[in-house]
Amino acid sequence: MVPHLITALTGPINELEQRILDATPVIERWFRLEWMEHTPPLYCSVDIRNAGFKLSPVDTNLYPDGWHNLSPDMLPLAVQAGQAAIEKICPEARNLLIVPENGKPSSFYLASLARLQEIFRMAGLNVRFGSIDPAVKRAVSYALPDGEKITFEPAQRTRYRVGLKHFDPCTILLNNDLSAGAPGILEDLHEQYLLPPLQAGWSVRRKSRHFQCYEEVAKRFGKLIGVDPWLINPLFASCGEIDIHEPSGGECLRSNVDALLTKIRRKYKEYGINEKPFVVVKADQGTRGMGIMTVRDAKELAQLGSKPTRGKALPEVPHGEVIIQEGVLTNERIHDAVAEPVVYMIDRYVVGGFYRVHADRGEDESLNAPGARFVPLAFANNTQLPKPGVKAGASAPNRFYMYGVIGRLALVAASYELEATDPELEALA
Amino acid sequence: MVPHLITALTGPINELEQRILDATPVIERWFRLEWMEHTPPLYCSVDIRNAGFKLSPVDTNLYPDGWHNLSPDMLPLAVQAGQAAIEKICPEARNLLIVPENGKPSSFYLASLARLQEIFRMAGLNVRFGSIDPAVKRAVSYALPDGEKITFEPAQRTRYRVGLKHFDPCTILLNNDLSAGAPGILEDLHEQYLLPPLQAGWSVRRKSRHFQCYEEVAKRFGKLIGVDPWLINPLFASCGEIDIHEPSGGECLRSNVDALLTKIRRKYKEYGINEKPFVVVKADQGTRGMGIMTVRDAKELAQLGSKPTRGKALPEVPHGEVIIQEGVLTNERIHDAVAEPVVYMIDRYVVGGFYRVHADRGEDESLNAPGARFVPLAFANNTQLPKPGVKAGASAPNRFYMYGVIGRLALVAASYELEATDPELEALA
Repeated sequence: MVPHLITALTGPINELEQRILDATPVIERWFRLEWMEHTPPLYCSVDIRNAGFKLSPVDTNLYPDGWHNLSPDMLPLAVQAGQAAIEKICPEARNLLIVPENGKPSSFYLASLARLQEIFRMAGLNVRFGSIDPAVKRAVSYALPDGEKITFEPAQRTRYRVGLKHFDPCTILLNNDLSAGAPGILEDLHEQYLLPPLQAGWSVRRKSRHFQCYEEVAKRFGKLIGVDPWLINPLFASCGEIDIHEPSGGECLRSNVDALLTKIRRKYKEYGINEKPFVVVKADQGTRGMGIMTVRDAKELAQLGSKPTRGKALPEVPHGEVIIQEGVLTNERIHDAVAEPVVYMIDRYVVGGFYRVHADRGEDESLNAPGARFVPLAFANNTQLPKPGVKAGASAPNRFYMYGVIGRLALVAASYELEATDPELEALA
Repeated sequence: MVPHLITALTGPINELEQRILDATPVIERWFRLEWMEHTPPLYCSVDIRNAGFKLSPVDTNLYPDGWHNLSPDMLPLAVQAGQAAIEKICPEARNLLIVPENGKPSSFYLASLARLQEIFRMAGLNVRFGSIDPAVKRAVSYALPDGEKITFEPAQRTRYRVGLKHFDPCTILLNNDLSAGAPGILEDLHEQYLLPPLQAGWSVRRKSRHFQCYEEVAKRFGKLIGVDPWLINPLFASCGEIDIHEPSGGECLRSNVDALLTKIRRKYKEYGINEKPFVVVKADQGTRGMGIMTVRDAKELAQLGSKPTRGKALPEVPHGEVIIQEGVLTNERIHDAVAEPVVYMIDRYVVGGFYRVHADRGEDESLNAPGARFVPLAFANNTQLPKPGVKAGASAPNRFYMYGVIGRLALVAASYELEATDPELEALA
């Protein structure tokens, strides 16, 4: 049931994999101690890239969709994790309100919401959808392929709470990334749990802050199991707010790209890696795989900083705040198509994952683009769990434990990040 | 993957099943609230019988073996539940000591221990086996079929703790039912967790106390979802200590059997059930399916109370304390052989189950006997989880949610039972 993966893993990654498998009890204990001090986001998905010599998270999504891409076999695991989460948050709860994305939902998004509803219903809650889209003025139902339907009702605000007519939730689960900013209807809810909290929305969140937290986590984890943190940490730099049409903006970007490429080149040399380093330039805010640019040489950005010339387009660099991240190749292949693992978590638990596969994209390109397909990571003789004593790399799915560890490191980083931006904690500081 | 079950479920059970499926959020919330007040045993297995018209636990094992009979697909669920348990008990823990049964282990028992070790190792602990068998004076290794081995080391007592040489566990997991009484080596351990606690051992435990607690749970649960508790509760009576060779012993047994059969007959009449009631007489202590006697009429016990006559054997009635329990038919069949579901739990979570199948036993007999086979309940399109709106009984595995509910009701009863016999709580009372 697990897709056959054509991987060509050589060099340090096998050593890293072995190190992680051997250290399982140490690693799990470390996570237990982290979760004594920090609160994981209620749910999270992490895109991972496995370059063979290096394994890194490249994107951490705090409003994951794509739940329908998980293998149905994984559902009991998600339900159990959901139960654990509810027990901690509000065991007396009867109702959960899910706030979906604004706008007309795609059939994929509806399938994802249906799965999410199923998970939390089976975990023991009545689950309904409350839209905060101003266009949703009364209940709208959408048919699902299996004959079921999903109904969006307009979320209603009372003085202290948000709910639906005759439906008062204990927890409000945001599946809406709040790109347009925190809407008034969700502000100052002191009687209900809003998860993830408002500061997880993309109007507040910055990728650079997440990866700064991740760097800290990676350093500590590297020390724990005795590996160079670089093997699991993508280097990055950020420029703050830049205007690529201004000389200062172009210059900042070029010098950062150049400095980062130099750092990566040094690391490649240290490990004897015969690949050409590259960086990825992307918006520091925002969730979709839009406006992502792969750069192998700062010279490619030579035109930046000048006014656009008629008839000569500038490279498509994102505007505003920009993060420059070390590019991590993906060496995973499914039937020759480039693949990257995506790991899903509920509370502190890994509950599944899938491969994002894109036949038309290269190993150094984002796969989060139209045309991507999804291959669930399914159970096959429990091989997604580590077996002590089994040679690392001997079986592809063994690798999933390692992906689960990297996913959870990003989850720890997300918990640091949300603490660092918590307005209540900030007020105390 | 799920075995095809020839079930002939008609009458109230389908209504009960529908009631349970519809009430999922109410039921799960009820369990959440129970677990706020009570602590579940670390692990537990429950034998369940499904008569079609009635569904009951018949045996609750606090030292479950048979872990190897669970489907490997269920392993991640067990690992996750194990993680949740460790987090609560001692998150800082590195080591877990498992105390196996005394005596030479069978290959089945070794396979079960290997699985248990795998579960807790993957949950993040170093796991070793400490034998309390006085015959184990130094480490003994047993080979497993897959080339691995299991080593029993003699458990060592220091003044305050139990462990092995160079192995100091935070928690000691008993997989030994302590039939011979609590051994000194495990007494007065105030610095370590001993799970299940000493009073769960068969020298203290009584089935009658468990079913008394279960009756209370069943009554409250029946009220919660609006069903007659009898539909999930096996009636019982107990005689205390009897000697079946004495007239008083025989008389006590006969009168209790007769009274219980009358009660059951009345219930059968109420529900229009055309079956012959029967009761099961078994020892109130002890774990194995030994000395279990099926009785359909008190007259079968006419000879009891007299001294044995040469050449004429008495019916094989257990000596000592005896429990008389309503017999629950099993209507589950796998390939024509009588089957009963067994549900496994870790902490508060159902982590798997299997069918105990016995080709040579009747539907009113114990299947826990030599010759039993085990068929894992495996995942098949997540059908072991309830689907709202799907007709009850339409798919066999749908039934597994219901079995998980009954198993957890017995788990709640076990937590009451362990509280009632807790020497520290008794001292406070």
